[in-house]
Amino acid sequence: MNILILGGDGFCGWPTSLRLARAGHIVTIADNLARRAVDLKLSSASLTDIAPVATRLATARDHVGEIDFRLLDVAQDPGGLRALIAECRPDAIVQFAEQRAAPYSMLGDAERRYTIDNNVTGTHNVLSAIVDVDPEIHLVHLGTMGVYGYSREFGAIPEGYLKVEIAQTGNEAEILYPANPGSVYHMTKCLDQLLFQFYVKNWGLKVTDLHQGVVWGIETEETRLDPRLVNRFDYDGIYGTVINRFISQTANGHPLTVYGTGGQSRAFIHIQDTARCVQLALEAPPEGRKVRIFNQVAEVQSVRGLAEILRDTYGADIAFVDNPRKELPENDLEVDNTGLRSLGFEPITLTAGLVEDVRLIAERTAAKFDTDNVLNSPTW
Amino acid sequence: MNILILGGDGFCGWPTSLRLARAGHIVTIADNLARRAVDLKLSSASLTDIAPVATRLATARDHVGEIDFRLLDVAQDPGGLRALIAECRPDAIVQFAEQRAAPYSMLGDAERRYTIDNNVTGTHNVLSAIVDVDPEIHLVHLGTMGVYGYSREFGAIPEGYLKVEIAQTGNEAEILYPANPGSVYHMTKCLDQLLFQFYVKNWGLKVTDLHQGVVWGIETEETRLDPRLVNRFDYDGIYGTVINRFISQTANGHPLTVYGTGGQSRAFIHIQDTARCVQLALEAPPEGRKVRIFNQVAEVQSVRGLAEILRDTYGADIAFVDNPRKELPENDLEVDNTGLRSLGFEPITLTAGLVEDVRLIAERTAAKFDTDNVLNSPTW
Repeated sequence: MNILILGGDGFCGWPTSLRLARAGHIVTIADNLARRAVDLKLSSASLTDIAPVATRLATARDHVGEIDFRLLDVAQDPGGLRALIAECRPDAIVQFAEQRAAPYSMLGDAERRYTIDNNVTGTHNVLSAIVDVDPEIHLVHLGTMGVYGYSREFGAIPEGYLKVEIAQTGNEAEILYPANPGSVYHMTKCLDQLLFQFYVKNWGLKVTDLHQGVVWGIETEETRLDPRLVNRFDYDGIYGTVINRFISQTANGHPLTVYGTGGQSRAFIHIQDTARCVQLALEAPPEGRKVRIFNQVAEVQSVRGLAEILRDTYGADIAFVDNPRKELPENDLEVDNTGLRSLGFEPITLTAGLVEDVRLIAERTAAKFDTDNVLNSPTW
Repeated sequence: MNILILGGDGFCGWPTSLRLARAGHIVTIADNLARRAVDLKLSSASLTDIAPVATRLATARDHVGEIDFRLLDVAQDPGGLRALIAECRPDAIVQFAEQRAAPYSMLGDAERRYTIDNNVTGTHNVLSAIVDVDPEIHLVHLGTMGVYGYSREFGAIPEGYLKVEIAQTGNEAEILYPANPGSVYHMTKCLDQLLFQFYVKNWGLKVTDLHQGVVWGIETEETRLDPRLVNRFDYDGIYGTVINRFISQTANGHPLTVYGTGGQSRAFIHIQDTARCVQLALEAPPEGRKVRIFNQVAEVQSVRGLAEILRDTYGADIAFVDNPRKELPENDLEVDNTGLRSLGFEPITLTAGLVEDVRLIAERTAAKFDTDNVLNSPTW
């Protein structure tokens, strides 16, 4: 299969690109290297030493096969994007090229606007180009579980669509799950959903939207093949997801900083499963009559529960800090992930993967760990 | 009241600005004159001879009072927008500065992208600036009835929110009405809705979203004060709304071109009522806990019913043509407009206003009427 991966140099994009190339697909990455540029701006960096793009590609050639790379800004250069799609003629496009951090999107006016403009304009540019170049191209998009919000108000979280009875008519209907984002970042994924609904309805495009849980973990089967293929690993309050912050704190003997009571339940997935799930979605494209929505999650845990696993295993201390976010202090969560399971997804569980990750981070990264970076989240 | 009107030179913006100035409010218009530029691009123009901005403002000064004007692109120049809001310190901002034509948004890739980027980026720029400059500023936004779609699937159209029972839990809930746009243009108004929901939830902004029906009519009490205050009047297949096309066809002895069977029912409102309703919303701002949504409509009619009114009154011929749009061929429609009625809205009805409009267009504009422009809609 011929696959164009937008944002293929990033945290999810890079291991996915490696996996797909290793599976024998023709892979082209387009990336503007925005995430590397943010490191400079925030004076924060990956705890792992990520290689320059050219080194990554040369190393990948030896281990998983040729990966083509284009420096391209999907949001800013719609003409270049269109030309690239026309040149590659991919069977599928994976859209990872969105600003992916909720805290970053809440830093201030410039970051709010950047997140909206980059994510919505970029994803719309892709859709509009697909209509003209080849409506048969399957678009796979990384969404987020955050589109649903985290209340139990509507019961267990279904895969994208909610069954309701209309009070006025008494009729049953299946509607897109009502959007309930908790940050500007999450909101962009809600806007994306409406773009997909309309483009599928009007032009019959094939779209899979993967509502991913909180990603954790460092290495995948492919990044482990060579140290120069290592994935980035963020532990700061802005780009670091909660388990990755905890892993780096554990590895560096720092107390685990739990926001609020830690009673927030979230759905999680290991980075290797991200790559695996995207592959499953690509290799079984949907019909074009309805947006296919999968919940890309392995299991549900509370933040406090996570901290307790690490405390019980490593004797880590737990420090409760004020929650910088507006969110429910405690919530239950139950998530349907039958779509990807039906395609063969067998999740990596937290306890199994955590030990390995803590060891790896402890060995490799102590010198770079900066305690000031762990609590640098903006408040909203 | 101090009011900043974005897009105040346009079809809805200009008569609203005049009305608000005449009512004694302090009015500042910001506009990039994009709609005048589109006239050049599409070789189509207002059937009325609209005056240059400077003439409009000088004339307005004599009849309704001072109106300040700034040449500003709300989407492209967020810094300028923010500075203007900080300088004016308005009590309210009216957001008319969106590309407003469904057919224009469906012309091709460039117009799809322009519509998304201009409308979503622009409206988000306004919200983000309000958060920082003064969260007390009331934002009034022109939405569209098109966000609901036109099916009877969920019964009569409520004002923005739909009562449902969740199948899984049996609980009742009131959700944002599920978006069902029929064009890229309509889709942008659905995206705007999600922006408003989040900004109100997170920052407590005060937002009124006016889901307007199809606007018709030419003059208002204020534009009639002087010929140099005349409003623009579009009759082409791209920017002309259906009644305005019919009015100009009747006035020029051309058959009324009905798309499909004409069984499409839509909600309509006269341009004078647009200005009146925006004034009502401004003068009674909402609390900041929930987006206030009003349906800004006067009455429901089918397209065929409209044509028959003009046939019966003027002997106009009716010509059924292929429908260029993807939409239901026939639909019923019932719309709740109690919100604006409760504030004092008493709609102008179609039969009362039509006679005057046909006479006016017949007198003034025969020389400019171009039959080729009436059927230039793109197909989608």
